[in-house]
Amino acid sequence: MTNISDTSVTRPQIHLLPGRSRRFRSGHPWIFSNEIVMSAEAKALPPGGLATIVDAGGERLGVGTFNPHSLIAVRVLSRNPDETVDQSFLALRLRRALALRDRLYDRPFYRLIHAEADGLPGLVIDRYGDIVVLEANTAGMEMLLPALLAALDEVLAPSTVLLQNDGAIRKLEGLELYDRVAKGEISGPIELEENGAYFFADLVTGQKTGWFFDQRDNRAAVAAMAKGRSVIDFYSYAGGFAIQAALAGAGKVVAVDRSEGSLALAAQSAERNGVVIEPVRAEAFAEMERLKAANQLFGVVIADPPAFVKSKKDLAAGSKGYRKMVRLAAGLVEPGGVLMVASCSHHMGTDAFAEEVRHGLSLAGREGRILRSSGAGADHPLHPFLPESAYLKALLLQLD
Amino acid sequence: MTNISDTSVTRPQIHLLPGRSRRFRSGHPWIFSNEIVMSAEAKALPPGGLATIVDAGGERLGVGTFNPHSLIAVRVLSRNPDETVDQSFLALRLRRALALRDRLYDRPFYRLIHAEADGLPGLVIDRYGDIVVLEANTAGMEMLLPALLAALDEVLAPSTVLLQNDGAIRKLEGLELYDRVAKGEISGPIELEENGAYFFADLVTGQKTGWFFDQRDNRAAVAAMAKGRSVIDFYSYAGGFAIQAALAGAGKVVAVDRSEGSLALAAQSAERNGVVIEPVRAEAFAEMERLKAANQLFGVVIADPPAFVKSKKDLAAGSKGYRKMVRLAAGLVEPGGVLMVASCSHHMGTDAFAEEVRHGLSLAGREGRILRSSGAGADHPLHPFLPESAYLKALLLQLD
Repeated sequence: MTNISDTSVTRPQIHLLPGRSRRFRSGHPWIFSNEIVMSAEAKALPPGGLATIVDAGGERLGVGTFNPHSLIAVRVLSRNPDETVDQSFLALRLRRALALRDRLYDRPFYRLIHAEADGLPGLVIDRYGDIVVLEANTAGMEMLLPALLAALDEVLAPSTVLLQNDGAIRKLEGLELYDRVAKGEISGPIELEENGAYFFADLVTGQKTGWFFDQRDNRAAVAAMAKGRSVIDFYSYAGGFAIQAALAGAGKVVAVDRSEGSLALAAQSAERNGVVIEPVRAEAFAEMERLKAANQLFGVVIADPPAFVKSKKDLAAGSKGYRKMVRLAAGLVEPGGVLMVASCSHHMGTDAFAEEVRHGLSLAGREGRILRSSGAGADHPLHPFLPESAYLKALLLQLD
Repeated sequence: MTNISDTSVTRPQIHLLPGRSRRFRSGHPWIFSNEIVMSAEAKALPPGGLATIVDAGGERLGVGTFNPHSLIAVRVLSRNPDETVDQSFLALRLRRALALRDRLYDRPFYRLIHAEADGLPGLVIDRYGDIVVLEANTAGMEMLLPALLAALDEVLAPSTVLLQNDGAIRKLEGLELYDRVAKGEISGPIELEENGAYFFADLVTGQKTGWFFDQRDNRAAVAAMAKGRSVIDFYSYAGGFAIQAALAGAGKVVAVDRSEGSLALAAQSAERNGVVIEPVRAEAFAEMERLKAANQLFGVVIADPPAFVKSKKDLAAGSKGYRKMVRLAAGLVEPGGVLMVASCSHHMGTDAFAEEVRHGLSLAGREGRILRSSGAGADHPLHPFLPESAYLKALLLQLD
């Protein structure tokens, strides 16, 4: 057992200001810095250390990690102030998350931990069979890492553990960015299975943890509409949408991406599944415009781009980007065909995205209907008190 | 062919006020009464008749049905002002909708027409194999009924057509409420298939058109979580959730409803599928409280009630009702079990419903995660410009 020597008796206490416990009590998993008595002692605590949360009346409310330098000062781990946060505690959380995924999926490829919603704030773990990729995005999780890695060994005994601690969000927590192989080794792409299809993903040089598990259900929904239709998948990355559509009986399937490496992975995956896709190396907007000029139409058009809105200040420009994407993509959909568009921008709300989709359709002069409005799959659960963490928005439309 | 003798030349024109064509031009399918020149001639037009839409500059924009007595004065049928709206036109719309459902589903049980989203404002058609149940909710659809019935015969040749024109919404359009068998005959419950399960539904005396197709995908999502678990289905109606959970391998399955007739149908359906469910005739809240007092817990708890918010003035009381429902239902979920709660109230927004769910969980002292946030299935498409018509909100949660 990795001992992080936490006990409810020895750990420091953080005091809430009068009248500031209500949101916490209602179930919210964060406490903001302006809700806390920021005494010299509190400020001197090590960022990310465990602390007992105490209200202004002296009642002990729970335990969380505390970072005096972050706007989100406390991230709640338990509403039992007598809880000991150690390897056993973390192992229980991992087991709970694992039991849910075991029920959801036949195969061991999924997001295992989705931060607050899985009771481990700031932590993301994606599982690729024996290999796990871990992102610790908060000072609290960084401090808990040794115990967490021990708990992972206890629960899952992975052969390989990659730490992908290079997300920009870590800067807000005063953390360094780094990547590290914490256990085992990895070389080259690994194989994963999703909705009965096989894919190769590069966990080391790929985007995010290597694969976007969040689109699993949306890929199935698109595939269900693809039989006998021509398909074009913009921002194809490793071919998730394209190959599942091909397996579902699509006709011609084109995968567009600007990365040679991604297209090579997609081609390798297509071969593995015994289907053919046509890789096109191009910028999405330019290729959309080229195809439009050539009067090319497709039965299924997919546009699942990287986040256009990376921060609040990008909102106006990013919104315009989505609008343009929908206008151009809609122009390539044959009458009766379908369009799947998605946004993974945290700062783009569901309603705002739908508004840009409407606007884009209007600019393209296309009418149609929304068949499905969805987010990420169930291995990316939402904390009920953090609805704003529903970053993925996907709309599947049929156009006339 | 039923001749409704419409031509773009002979039909009356409706003139928009200056500056009031923008929303229509952007793609919205309604024009409000205060956007129209309400001349004596316009007011004298027969409610629901066809009219050409003309902007203040004299440009002809499209064709719709016009009701001078309704706040939603024009419902757009086509953006081509030269379109002739007749049996052929209606048949094309029906064929388009049918082609979509043919792609979505193997079996002929679904919502065939979902109003504006299917290009037929005010019209709902549910299909039960050879039988269709039709709701005409606007004066426009009432006027088009003869041509529509002829188009239905042309496209689908149903054996039986039921007109269920008894929705309160018809009063806003100045229409009488009536039920009528327009074609064929019907006696007793009919059989339908959904997600591989068989059900009996009473199309004449049942709720709405007899079956709630909108929950198809949500029933599948719940069933996928039900294996080996005890299940209780409140507001069970004809057993949709309960029986699909039983078929998926649930343990004990309890169906609670206050209607003897609904429970009898559910029992009949259970037998048809070779599964056992335990019918309990009771008011949902009272039964929830009784079970709580008896310390009974279930692995899966479903609460899919009739609309608590039937009009805007019910919003406060209805919101409290959802909160209470979630509080009581959450109290019956065993640790690690799942809770499915839904609202079909038009006036209850997605965010507002999620807020009541949060509040209910908080009152029950339960934590957990949202696994799925969804609406109706794809046979209930949404018009992109009418996001407010997404009446069904369903949340699937796992509770700790």
